[in-house]
Amino acid sequence: MTMSLSAELWPDVQPDAARRLMLAGVESFAQRGYHATTTRDIATNAGMSPAALYVHFPSKAALLFAISRSGHEQALELVRTAAESADAPTRAMREIVERFVAWHARRHTIARVVQYELGALPEKEYRVVAELRRDIERIVHDLVVKGANAGVFTVSDPMTAARAVLSLGVDVARWYTDRSRKSPTALGREYGELALRMLGADPARSPS
Amino acid sequence: MTMSLSAELWPDVQPDAARRLMLAGVESFAQRGYHATTTRDIATNAGMSPAALYVHFPSKAALLFAISRSGHEQALELVRTAAESADAPTRAMREIVERFVAWHARRHTIARVVQYELGALPEKEYRVVAELRRDIERIVHDLVVKGANAGVFTVSDPMTAARAVLSLGVDVARWYTDRSRKSPTALGREYGELALRMLGADPARSPS
Repeated sequence: MTMSLSAELWPDVQPDAARRLMLAGVESFAQRGYHATTTRDIATNAGMSPAALYVHFPSKAALLFAISRSGHEQALELVRTAAESADAPTRAMREIVERFVAWHARRHTIARVVQYELGALPEKEYRVVAELRRDIERIVHDLVVKGANAGVFTVSDPMTAARAVLSLGVDVARWYTDRSRKSPTALGREYGELALRMLGADPARSPS
Repeated sequence: MTMSLSAELWPDVQPDAARRLMLAGVESFAQRGYHATTTRDIATNAGMSPAALYVHFPSKAALLFAISRSGHEQALELVRTAAESADAPTRAMREIVERFVAWHARRHTIARVVQYELGALPEKEYRVVAELRRDIERIVHDLVVKGANAGVFTVSDPMTAARAVLSLGVDVARWYTDRSRKSPTALGREYGELALRMLGADPARSPS
């Protein structure tokens, strides 16, 4: 169960032991926070010795960085693909929000670590992740501007609007649980409508 | 400096030593997380001995509870007052969002602890705070329903819409810093417009 989940989450990470450590790290960080988690906790959680952990990650910070970078890269890829999926800004924005929200609901435990443990990253690693975050913001910002120029969006400050759109998705990771009554996909669809309205567009003119 | 800030944050808490411990707790929890913070860290940060801390709070969990309950009570009071400040749902909703967003920006360090360390509260204390959260959600939800019934809001699911409105405010605490270029008040005003649009209302018909 755990093995197949970790393979699904990080298909590009090899070997499987590294993926198991990432999953154990996510679970430990999400539960007790980065600073209160020891490498021993993580290794035990993954059924390994602390020495085995260091074979794959030189430090606890390196493990957090691997989790954080991978999560941000997945989010960026998802936002970029969604943005390129349609020419019409309303259509593209709806795709972004639907997929971004669904990802934060489906992957809420990883997303919590990714979103809330940024401050624990060492300076150099933080800069790498911050650049990925800027890329995500930039795609949404540019699409807001494109829609405003095309007359389909009405916003007073594109950067604030872009950040608010992303906030809707990010905050889902805080409250969503496996017991939430809406599926990630259904929630994404509703949020897609809310986000389009927020940008002054009529969702009925760009159906899901 | 620290003393006057703690008095401003918790005017109802006495004596000043208890307020200083709450402020030291907020700073420590926000920086390293609840689980990685010891009562010794907090006492030292407040310029006291660990024994002096226990005079005011029987445990670290009791201190977190005091911070969390106070933060939620302030947010609830703010939302309730805003909701009652106007009869028109659009006007009342704008007031709620403006004040809720500004509070999360101005008090971003406290708000982070309040919003992200909920899981660290013991069961009984968690239930008290969860009830305050439901009260906040209920006020916003009821206002969404009132506006929908009055034909000024258009939403497919009032609970999802209410949660999205609150998410806009909560997530501000995650990214807002003292170096952010917009003041809490200015940000609140912009978000008030975005939230009204999200609910299908025209902000121009209910100016700030």
